[in-house]
Amino acid sequence: MPLSLGDLATRFGCELIGDPDVVIHDVAPLDAADEHSLTFLANSAFRPKLAKTKAAAVVLRADDAAECPAAALIAEDPYVCYARMAAVIRPAPRHEPGRDPTAVVAGDADVAASAYLAAHAVVGERSVVGEDVYVGPGCVVGPDCVLGRGTRLIAKVTLVRNVQIGERCTLHPGAVIGADGFGNAMTPEGWVKVPQLGGVRIGDDVEIGANSTVDCGTLDDTVIEDGVRIDNLCMIAHNVVIGAHTAMASMTGISGSTIIGKRCIFSGQSGTVGHITICDDVIVGAQGAVTKDVTEPGMYASVIPVEPAKIWSKRLARLRRLGNLHKRIARLEKGDD
Amino acid sequence: MPLSLGDLATRFGCELIGDPDVVIHDVAPLDAADEHSLTFLANSAFRPKLAKTKAAAVVLRADDAAECPAAALIAEDPYVCYARMAAVIRPAPRHEPGRDPTAVVAGDADVAASAYLAAHAVVGERSVVGEDVYVGPGCVVGPDCVLGRGTRLIAKVTLVRNVQIGERCTLHPGAVIGADGFGNAMTPEGWVKVPQLGGVRIGDDVEIGANSTVDCGTLDDTVIEDGVRIDNLCMIAHNVVIGAHTAMASMTGISGSTIIGKRCIFSGQSGTVGHITICDDVIVGAQGAVTKDVTEPGMYASVIPVEPAKIWSKRLARLRRLGNLHKRIARLEKGDD
Amino acid sequence: MPLSLGDLATRFGCELIGDPDVVIHDVAPLDAADEHSLTFLANSAFRPKLAKTKAAAVVLRADDAAECPAAALIAEDPYVCYARMAAVIRPAPRHEPGRDPTAVVAGDADVAASAYLAAHAVVGERSVVGEDVYVGPGCVVGPDCVLGRGTRLIAKVTLVRNVQIGERCTLHPGAVIGADGFGNAMTPEGWVKVPQLGGVRIGDDVEIGANSTVDCGTLDDTVIEDGVRIDNLCMIAHNVVIGAHTAMASMTGISGSTIIGKRCIFSGQSGTVGHITICDDVIVGAQGAVTKDVTEPGMYASVIPVEPAKIWSKRLARLRRLGNLHKRIARLEKGDD
Repeated sequence: MPLSLGDLATRFGCELIGDPDVVIHDVAPLDAADEHSLTFLANSAFRPKLAKTKAAAVVLRADDAAECPAAALIAEDPYVCYARMAAVIRPAPRHEPGRDPTAVVAGDADVAASAYLAAHAVVGERSVVGEDVYVGPGCVVGPDCVLGRGTRLIAKVTLVRNVQIGERCTLHPGAVIGADGFGNAMTPEGWVKVPQLGGVRIGDDVEIGANSTVDCGTLDDTVIEDGVRIDNLCMIAHNVVIGAHTAMASMTGISGSTIIGKRCIFSGQSGTVGHITICDDVIVGAQGAVTKDVTEPGMYASVIPVEPAKIWSKRLARLRRLGNLHKRIARLEKGDD
Repeated sequence: MPLSLGDLATRFGCELIGDPDVVIHDVAPLDAADEHSLTFLANSAFRPKLAKTKAAAVVLRADDAAECPAAALIAEDPYVCYARMAAVIRPAPRHEPGRDPTAVVAGDADVAASAYLAAHAVVGERSVVGEDVYVGPGCVVGPDCVLGRGTRLIAKVTLVRNVQIGERCTLHPGAVIGADGFGNAMTPEGWVKVPQLGGVRIGDDVEIGANSTVDCGTLDDTVIEDGVRIDNLCMIAHNVVIGAHTAMASMTGISGSTIIGKRCIFSGQSGTVGHITICDDVIVGAQGAVTKDVTEPGMYASVIPVEPAKIWSKRLARLRRLGNLHKRIARLEKGDD
Repeated sequence: MPLSLGDLATRFGCELIGDPDVVIHDVAPLDAADEHSLTFLANSAFRPKLAKTKAAAVVLRADDAAECPAAALIAEDPYVCYARMAAVIRPAPRHEPGRDPTAVVAGDADVAASAYLAAHAVVGERSVVGEDVYVGPGCVVGPDCVLGRGTRLIAKVTLVRNVQIGERCTLHPGAVIGADGFGNAMTPEGWVKVPQLGGVRIGDDVEIGANSTVDCGTLDDTVIEDGVRIDNLCMIAHNVVIGAHTAMASMTGISGSTIIGKRCIFSGQSGTVGHITICDDVIVGAQGAVTKDVTEPGMYASVIPVEPAKIWSKRLARLRRLGNLHKRIARLEKGDD
């Protein structure tokens, strides 16, 4: 949606240095923006690109404004301000109400007139599809699910059964919500499946990435609170609770019954064991393994960065001779007596 | 299915302390069970909850029975006993025989009259769908596949081609079985694909989690034996053999041609290199990397638990100075001569 | 397609030792091949199997030919030569042109007459499906996509929107291309989504594995160059560039805006942080974490192989007392003065 710089400044509470009547049609990176585009400078590392930008306007901090060759929109947090402006200038595509003739809907499902069901979508028994909901092509909404107002299943999302999703959520393709948790009891004859009877409750404004999985609870529900952001290929096991506004980068795995606080951040390929509690405001580094309760906010890590393989191989050998080192030092200390 | 305590005790061989005529309608956790519900106590850590439970009956060990405020069903392994009872009290949903009008079935496919094909299911050429099989919404059964009696594809499962699945298996949404293995031969001009011509053979009573992948063999088949349990987002590469009753938690990756024994357990985010053999009864810890043959049963690990990032950063620096430490000790030892 | 040994030798430039009129109908492993089958010996470790093979012919190196009990096709790189022959003897299945009546195609999509759209395939607005393209069952091609000549989406592939794919590519089931990148800006009220407006550009001869995800760029495109091979369950984040002929084994994760050179190899469960650059010809070992720029070709690693859990537990304890060791050595050194 085209907007004048004056409108943008007013709407988002920025100071504008420049012509308020210039109209913005698009957003673009600093080095590709043209005279109809808005761009931003959030990271000083990109300052050299600022001088050369051909953008109509740049969202930036006050102390970068002097060097801006275009109109400047001053913001305390230019990245957040840009994100909000971009969502207005280039809004997510709207759907028409209705349903594709190939959608299959159970007779007792309750689909709002303003919702859209795309090609080959399926809605199961007793499920409720709220106002302005978008159920993309090939999505399966199983029985006893609820989709709150404005929620969007992009494509091929599966809600197995008994999944409640709040308002304004986005689930990306291939996400599977509400599949059976991995509950098995060992016997001499092999594994006995523990029936997985709970559901999944997801709050408002949650985003779940492509091909991520959130299992149903065993008896209670698995819970994802408001504002949580889950990237692609993540795994949330049965009975996990994820606190509001926590974010998980790709390939994070949370084992069963673990309780995670609010505003935590899990970096890529990190994971936790099951049945632990992690407090609010914990940041876990890439590939980090959380193996017990975390009770103090802060950053946690255990990653070993790669090194040339020959060097790593020596280091590993030395690590394995540490016991020998301990003994030799003890001997030396004794000798010193 | 409602069952009396007397029926449960008889059917599952438990001693009952309490009124045999009380009828159980549901199962529930210790702290949420009501007077119509069965619950269980398997882990003594939850004993404090036992005294307060409002359940009709509790499955527990003999030595916990004295403290049970409700009827008690005595079992040696209460978790297994509860799992079996729960499967009867709350059975998996049954399907009607038939097929949704949107299912697409090849003319020469052989679909049993008692099977059900859900909305938008696809069954390919020459495939056999056995008695009581459930092919859920959006599943694709490619050509030359066989589904044994009672097997269930929950939704959006893909069997690419030449996949044989035994009886009573459950495949969760998004699982992909029989895709091409990752076979590539390097040439100066780039990779040449090695045709992947084998299939996948899966035994009876196997469960495969959401969005997991099992590739076809290159020439032979990839094999998953009876009773194997695979969690979500796992990867089983071409020509792998997984022994009976082995279990793999989420995000486990098994590389090509590796042979895994019976009753092994792989914890989350663990993995193996290719072309190795792992004997029976091996347990691999979370994030463990198995890089060579394992010939002795037992527990194996290499995880480094997270620590506060500052502490970890120092530890990593010290690890990198280990060579220096070795030299200094050698020097000290020499000086002691 | 049956081919005589003479034809094979001529077509692939091999020396043939044996009867040129023998006809090959199939390919098989050394120990399962019969008198109509071609096999190969690429790895000397399998030489003991050579003497016993019942194959019609074996592709092998000149210095293995003397021990070959069957006809021999001499090749410098027998694995590559075999791969090329196998692709002719057992070609990938061809599709007929046309479309299944259940396919849903937007009015303004441009689908070549030689393309095939399988059951429940969806092609969105303004998308172009080129000559000889195969869109398998349940695939969703969103709006504004382009599929180059001969490209095959096996089944249930999702191209979200604005995805360009070159010629002769293969995308395996469950792959999701062009979903939103994980762009979020933190505010005191929670995460604000950064609109993801770029696309994905994929070159020629690229293969992408089952359930892998390639996110769209934030403003620019995510780029995968010619000949790249990506295994199952990999994650390519927004704005990543992957150089030609790079290969990634299963569960590799590349974080946002990272630039990867040509002919790199990432082993299973490896990953990189975001915003780094990795030069050409880098090999990253299993579970390796690349945390900064790599400017020298070569092998990099940081994996810790599993050990018996008791041994590992001691090693970990020693690793944690390294600081103490450092202190004790310093004290000893002082005492020696």
